Amino acid sequence: MSALQFKGYAIEDTSDWEKFKLIEFEPKPFGDTDVEIKIHYCGVCGSDVHTITGGWGKPNLPLIVGHEIAGIVTRVGPKVSTFKAGDRVGVGAQVCSCGHCHLCNHNNEQYCHKIVGTYNSKYESGIATQGGYSTGIRCDERFVFPIPDNLKLEEAAPLFCAGLTVFSPLVRNGTGPGKKVGIVGIGGLGHLAIQFAKALGADEIVVFSHSTRKQEDALELGGTKFVVTEDGFETALRASLDLILCTANVASGVRLNEFITTLVPGGRFVMVALPDEALPSLGASTLVTGTYYGGSLLGSKQEAVQMLKLASEKGIKPWIEVLPMSDAGKAVRNVKDGKGRYRYVLKQDIDQ
Amino acid sequence: MSALQFKGYAIEDTSDWEKFKLIEFEPKPFGDTDVEIKIHYCGVCGSDVHTITGGWGKPNLPLIVGHEIAGIVTRVGPKVSTFKAGDRVGVGAQVCSCGHCHLCNHNNEQYCHKIVGTYNSKYESGIATQGGYSTGIRCDERFVFPIPDNLKLEEAAPLFCAGLTVFSPLVRNGTGPGKKVGIVGIGGLGHLAIQFAKALGADEIVVFSHSTRKQEDALELGGTKFVVTEDGFETALRASLDLILCTANVASGVRLNEFITTLVPGGRFVMVALPDEALPSLGASTLVTGTYYGGSLLGSKQEAVQMLKLASEKGIKPWIEVLPMSDAGKAVRNVKDGKGRYRYVLKQDIDQ
Repeated sequence: MSALQFKGYAIEDTSDWEKFKLIEFEPKPFGDTDVEIKIHYCGVCGSDVHTITGGWGKPNLPLIVGHEIAGIVTRVGPKVSTFKAGDRVGVGAQVCSCGHCHLCNHNNEQYCHKIVGTYNSKYESGIATQGGYSTGIRCDERFVFPIPDNLKLEEAAPLFCAGLTVFSPLVRNGTGPGKKVGIVGIGGLGHLAIQFAKALGADEIVVFSHSTRKQEDALELGGTKFVVTEDGFETALRASLDLILCTANVASGVRLNEFITTLVPGGRFVMVALPDEALPSLGASTLVTGTYYGGSLLGSKQEAVQMLKLASEKGIKPWIEVLPMSDAGKAVRNVKDGKGRYRYVLKQDIDQ
Repeated sequence: MSALQFKGYAIEDTSDWEKFKLIEFEPKPFGDTDVEIKIHYCGVCGSDVHTITGGWGKPNLPLIVGHEIAGIVTRVGPKVSTFKAGDRVGVGAQVCSCGHCHLCNHNNEQYCHKIVGTYNSKYESGIATQGGYSTGIRCDERFVFPIPDNLKLEEAAPLFCAGLTVFSPLVRNGTGPGKKVGIVGIGGLGHLAIQFAKALGADEIVVFSHSTRKQEDALELGGTKFVVTEDGFETALRASLDLILCTANVASGVRLNEFITTLVPGGRFVMVALPDEALPSLGASTLVTGTYYGGSLLGSKQEAVQMLKLASEKGIKPWIEVLPMSDAGKAVRNVKDGKGRYRYVLKQDIDQ
């Protein structure tokens, strides 16, 4: 294959975050353990919107976002052992870590404090990372995931951030037979969380939403019960759930203290959405329920491989709408507005 | 034995919380599954101070506090199967629960939503509960704990609230060989938490305090490392602890967001102190560490029995100072002021 031209759709100003401009950029130097990937598809994640709008702080500009990347390997470094040119692969929201700390060595590389994000981050060398609304990416093979044959590239893409972000806390908190799981919010993350909870064998999957609009979808995706989070919703569920995964991206609207009462002692409420706004606070009355509140970040490669295997075996697919990559502005606007059923995926359309 | 006279030292006004007045009171009617206990000793718990000062809200007055009770059984109801008159027993902070819900049936009776506290609480019948700064107590045998022969009554008393409150989250969070545990604060709870963590076999027990004043004690109690929580204390401990038990009773002073970074992914920060003030809030940056923040309430009878066995086998004892019960005012003042090394126990001195 010919050498990749590195171009992508970039944001130049957070106040003009729907306006993407095609730019060229310099990728990281190609390393011995690097894989170079021609990007065919890139999912549109809520993180992209938080970043380009400045919701999480001022980003490095110009910035190409996108960290749900699916494509084909174009070349590999001499020390790459697990990929070859032509392989179908994905990259998620992380492209590097130190590689030798206790966390890196124990399938917790996403928690390494030298994490390098796929975009809006910098390698130790100082090179800025650019994301997947672009023609290609280079990164260490540790952060490249092989896509099973029976998953389409465009359907695999959202698994690398949205999918892994929900899969990791589901498995780490023991989701499986005998367990009752709650999923708050039905969107890019939530609609995958419901499917994975079902595939992992949870006894009950209670889907929470603030209205009945997505009730049918929730049940079709695998939910066993649908609960509208109106006043008093928690009473009938008191101390019954083992885990609640909160994918809802609205800090002030999440009834944390009510949700906590629906957990069994030792149960956990895990926030996987990271809103721009302040996080909900815990009341003292929630502490005495013997439950836990926490978060989670992405997942390990080990978990990504496990997730892809499960998706392949059980036919788990994100519900997607494919747009040409040049429509990135429309896609992020719709994500910001809560539209989309349930994930936009951008298809490569840059001349190379 | 002769019938008990129910008398105790009561608070009549939260603004005059050091002034205890000897009153008579009406115990609950003696039920078929009840045990009646002549109180010999009662520990002085931080909860007593929160309650009588109105820190947790206006209590029922007049109120007799005290829920670290040790004494001798004087009579048992016809359906009591596990105790007889003359037995050495204790009662902690709970005297009733519904007895038939899922939580009660699975060793989580302390989380039953029909919990009745040992004092400042009411039975469903409407009868107010009065605590252990008194001559006696009646309660269901489910909430009475047998004291092993080699534990003195006065040394057993603090185990029933302080001990159980730390023991339950230690065991529920897997404290044992291979685990590293942090204990924040060295007081009534903390000094027992250190001992139990050691007895359970934790590899490391890191004791945190805001000064070096109690360093020697912490190491003597079983701590393997002592850390002063000054600026930057967390850096050297990054992602290293499996569990932190926070016994420090000062909401604003607990560096929650720093502590969280010392936990491994999946690690837990458990608040067992319940301050009067607002709880510390979690920053968004703490959520992405994959850790959990939560609380715990007392412990189950199963755990109490396990704790007493361990204390008996390993010689675990609270460090106590015994005062006559009529000195309750001095004791609560000293607890409020953070004095005491590390638990006051009141000795019965009421004429009966």
